[in-house]
Amino acid sequence: MLKVTNDQVAGHKAGDGKLGPLIDDLGRFYKPLQSNERGSNELTFYTSFSTNTRIPSPIRRFFPNFYGTQLVEASDGSSLQPHLVLQDFNFGRVNPSIIDIKIGSRTWDPQASEEYIQKGLKKDRETSSLPLGFRLSGFQIYQNRELGFWKPERTFQSLSADEVDLLLRKFVSSNTSANLDLQPDCSFASIVYGGSTGILSQLLELKAWFEDQTIYHFYSCSVLMTYEKEFVSNGKIPCAEIKLIDFAHVYEGQGVIDHNFLGGLCSLIKFISEILISPEECTTEASPKDIQKNQIYFEELIK
Amino acid sequence: MLKVTNDQVAGHKAGDGKLGPLIDDLGRFYKPLQSNERGSNELTFYTSFSTNTRIPSPIRRFFPNFYGTQLVEASDGSSLQPHLVLQDFNFGRVNPSIIDIKIGSRTWDPQASEEYIQKGLKKDRETSSLPLGFRLSGFQIYQNRELGFWKPERTFQSLSADEVDLLLRKFVSSNTSANLDLQPDCSFASIVYGGSTGILSQLLELKAWFEDQTIYHFYSCSVLMTYEKEFVSNGKIPCAEIKLIDFAHVYEGQGVIDHNFLGGLCSLIKFISEILISPEECTTEASPKDIQKNQIYFEELIK
Repeated sequence: MLKVTNDQVAGHKAGDGKLGPLIDDLGRFYKPLQSNERGSNELTFYTSFSTNTRIPSPIRRFFPNFYGTQLVEASDGSSLQPHLVLQDFNFGRVNPSIIDIKIGSRTWDPQASEEYIQKGLKKDRETSSLPLGFRLSGFQIYQNRELGFWKPERTFQSLSADEVDLLLRKFVSSNTSANLDLQPDCSFASIVYGGSTGILSQLLELKAWFEDQTIYHFYSCSVLMTYEKEFVSNGKIPCAEIKLIDFAHVYEGQGVIDHNFLGGLCSLIKFISEILISPEECTTEASPKDIQKNQIYFEELIK
Repeated sequence: MLKVTNDQVAGHKAGDGKLGPLIDDLGRFYKPLQSNERGSNELTFYTSFSTNTRIPSPIRRFFPNFYGTQLVEASDGSSLQPHLVLQDFNFGRVNPSIIDIKIGSRTWDPQASEEYIQKGLKKDRETSSLPLGFRLSGFQIYQNRELGFWKPERTFQSLSADEVDLLLRKFVSSNTSANLDLQPDCSFASIVYGGSTGILSQLLELKAWFEDQTIYHFYSCSVLMTYEKEFVSNGKIPCAEIKLIDFAHVYEGQGVIDHNFLGGLCSLIKFISEILISPEECTTEASPKDIQKNQIYFEELIK
């Protein structure tokens, strides 16, 4: 039996008769295969990547396992439809805190249609993509058993550097559950972001590959950062992980590194590094109230 | 007495009654201070940079020394005009081979005027800036005493990855003097690009700074790569150097790294690294004739 996932933070969501991804009980994630060029492009990528012998083994763990395509009943109840069968990252997790970060100051490929380029460029300029080299596409932060997740419905894509810094701090803090206005204590920063297996270490490993690989260019692709707050609180291994998702706009590198993705990745790395260097020095003047104001503004902007 | 420099490979050139930079006999370079925002912006940058205590000393050597401004007779004979007084990089050099590389897939600042953005974006898309993360703005390659410099008047800005690879190989080759069609032998690659003081090492040092610094964002700024072919041929120290120039579009970093410059720099580093790994394997199918064809095409494009 396939069911709707609760841990999706960005993109089209299933449920209420809408088409979206499904999961099973065996750790697989079923993503509807779009019938347009995006769908065929994403399938081409997964097929190419899964058989490409030039991908270093340690790098593969940052990508979803690919199990082919399968006709399954779509979540909108319409009919049997082809789905990409992928690894479900959140399989086995109980209350994962997740941030979805779309990497790159440019989300469009130089060869795209003029219409797509203009639309993508407009979005890049309106959001933090252009100034910061990435934008937050969605997130959920687990608070506690009573409050559940802090999971804003709308993305916080047009945040300033200070506001992004604040959110990345809240993501690894223990004191923001009851009062969103508190300055984050970053008490999980060293264990989630730091250490030899933490998120920073994984991002640096990915960066080293991007400095060298000229096989693929990843436009409009996201890095997911995930961990279990309760595991950390209980002193268990946090299993903080990064994963890359969304490959509908991946193209051949043609002998050139993906300088657009790499630049954005380095910008994110700098934010995370700064939090580790000064976990208690939240430099921001921005309060969560400012963020909510900003969010409302952004929602009006994109109406 | 000020005179016109012969070693300028890009930008407005002095001579024939035109306004351009001048040099003196003491190693100083006089750049006319534009009377618009660009001029004031460049002066602001030099003033800020030269007094900024957060710039690491080893990084300063990649930038021109700044000696203030001075009223001197402009090269167009018009009158006394304010000039930036800078270090003349080519002082003491006899026949420098030079490449001017404009770094960044985006040459415009997010805060620029709509007109400037549209113009810059068009140029970035028509040239190699968008796909490669940089474009060649000009160069001169010393051939020998008889032939002098290979110094094409028009820039080779819209080159493909293969063509850029070919030119970066020709830049460090000994066999292309007589016949431009020969595949470059890269016989100076290890001494000019490689080694602990070579160009790659300098680029990596610059890269490390760009991964960390959030003080400035450098739009439309160039890296110059320079060396003396005759020094290398005679077994002398090549004094291969990189220098950053053109700061009319430098803005405050506002807490974010310059991911645009950094991405382009990493792309250039990858090209240079590949030449050092396989100096004799010119992977390109492009011949210099193709490049000339491309150049003519580009000149028609920008008419």
